[in-house]
Amino acid sequence: MTNDKILLAHGNGGLLTNELITRIFLPHLKNPYLERMEDSAVFSVGNARYCFSTDTYVINPIFFPGGDIGSLAVHGTVNDLSMCGGKPLFLSAGFILEEGFPIEDLASIVKSLAMAANQAGVEVITGDTKVVARGSADGIFINTSGIGVIEYGSLISPASIVPGDAVIVSGMIGDHGAAVLNAREQIGASSTLVSDSAPLNTLVENMLRASPHVHCMRDATRGGLGAVLAEIAAQSDCTITIEEKDIPVRDEVRGICEILGLDPLYLANEGTMVAICPENQAPAVLAAMTGHELGRCAAIIGQVGQRGNGRLVMNTLIGGSRLVDLPSGELVPRIC
Amino acid sequence: MTNDKILLAHGNGGLLTNELITRIFLPHLKNPYLERMEDSAVFSVGNARYCFSTDTYVINPIFFPGGDIGSLAVHGTVNDLSMCGGKPLFLSAGFILEEGFPIEDLASIVKSLAMAANQAGVEVITGDTKVVARGSADGIFINTSGIGVIEYGSLISPASIVPGDAVIVSGMIGDHGAAVLNAREQIGASSTLVSDSAPLNTLVENMLRASPHVHCMRDATRGGLGAVLAEIAAQSDCTITIEEKDIPVRDEVRGICEILGLDPLYLANEGTMVAICPENQAPAVLAAMTGHELGRCAAIIGQVGQRGNGRLVMNTLIGGSRLVDLPSGELVPRIC
Repeated sequence: MTNDKILLAHGNGGLLTNELITRIFLPHLKNPYLERMEDSAVFSVGNARYCFSTDTYVINPIFFPGGDIGSLAVHGTVNDLSMCGGKPLFLSAGFILEEGFPIEDLASIVKSLAMAANQAGVEVITGDTKVVARGSADGIFINTSGIGVIEYGSLISPASIVPGDAVIVSGMIGDHGAAVLNAREQIGASSTLVSDSAPLNTLVENMLRASPHVHCMRDATRGGLGAVLAEIAAQSDCTITIEEKDIPVRDEVRGICEILGLDPLYLANEGTMVAICPENQAPAVLAAMTGHELGRCAAIIGQVGQRGNGRLVMNTLIGGSRLVDLPSGELVPRIC
Repeated sequence: MTNDKILLAHGNGGLLTNELITRIFLPHLKNPYLERMEDSAVFSVGNARYCFSTDTYVINPIFFPGGDIGSLAVHGTVNDLSMCGGKPLFLSAGFILEEGFPIEDLASIVKSLAMAANQAGVEVITGDTKVVARGSADGIFINTSGIGVIEYGSLISPASIVPGDAVIVSGMIGDHGAAVLNAREQIGASSTLVSDSAPLNTLVENMLRASPHVHCMRDATRGGLGAVLAEIAAQSDCTITIEEKDIPVRDEVRGICEILGLDPLYLANEGTMVAICPENQAPAVLAAMTGHELGRCAAIIGQVGQRGNGRLVMNTLIGGSRLVDLPSGELVPRIC
């Protein structure tokens, strides 16, 4: 390892997170499920296929425009299950509470978590609560794990991508990261910006109903659209080229990024995804997305190129082209 | 609620934990799975029955005699799945790391977690890592969630208990709590005492093979044998009477309890369970337990009495009898 202590950047979803996984976790926990390094593991029991996913939420602040740690903990795991074509069924919820945490805040977070689960059509069926002394945690952390059932026939994975495929994004990027940073850093840049946090399962259902050939889906969470597409490019071993002019970004998000010196491409989303499908299926998939409340701003933003060099390239607004790498620095800690 | 802030006692597995669940969690998350308030939720897909469980581990110290937070995170969740008669199949692992945590310690914990999973015959198939700034967590917290498949036909639950049933404990109680406290408080009371942390799935398999009528099983973790049996008594609405003289406790554990003013009955275990079965099945179940490495000290410790008053009563060594209630104070924080 490059370092002997954990750095904030080990949690950014970029290069150091990958190093931690490949050097510390995988050597001991090697198995075909984990090695796929996707958001959900897919397993079979008898003739049925299931997906299983886990995520811990440490967001700061816990209440933010457009949601809170409770709704986020549902949306994040529901979306991870949805991205492999699974229909989310059940969630677990594990709470770590700091001594002194206001019970009123806990009640409001649990209520929001329950409403989000209800809206997404999943049930929280098992849970756990631990309390640690003051100073041993920061307020509240929540883990949710989820189980889904997969009925879609094709394998949804970077391994299914082929040259010529279209790359589609479901909506405006960076809203979640920008809204959380705006609240946390008290920039006051915008009063209308809210997180995109939402459950993507019905959007995905509509897409898969519209096309039997969606090759890959990924929600653009930690590390943003840039990290997710760079990772898919590496995993598929195909060059992916995206057009900056076609990527939907709000002006408010650009403004906050300029103030903080960040790139919207690397800002986390919690209700925005990318889908990769054959070019001839793209109109049907896009129509399914734009016909859904959460995909109204969906757009085709790029194409999968040739094999043998799994990189992400962006044709920029000013006519150049640049390599988009996995984020390497600490970026934005505790954004999810 | 009695309080407006979270107290350490809200995490002790006793009265305040119950209050938190029934007043804050259940009103919003009400569903038939969660309302059973057992260690695992049982659900069906088609003809197959599964169990799902989650637990977050915040133990301090993270390395203790007989294990570490990695092995504990496997044993705890494997045991929760086993207690409903499930065969544990898959685990998730979600890590919260504090900035500055030694990578060498993380590697050793992951190695131990992997070895424990391997020993228990389960696979860790999905994971997540979050990093928070120095001071926002205490080193490392791990959540594991698990999925098991249930092939045993009868319902294993306090609801299945009937008057006359025998109560069996699988081994010495309090080793885990005493070993962790001994290490944490540097009492130096004993150099040989180790945690009982172990996966109980093969012990349970042997028990269920020996008898088709095990009514209830529970691992005696947070709150110890006392809390677990008091809870089973309440849930089954039957009086349970146990004999203090028959409960196996090591002298070292008694010694540490005397120094710290604790009761072994309330000390956490991580590889010790109780089973409740018809009296005529007790010899077969006991023989299956004593024939297994983890059940060598198993003993029949009590009996289920009449319905209508779900309390736990202990006949004491000195010839009296006392009510054993759920623990109400803070007891021993961060023991699991």
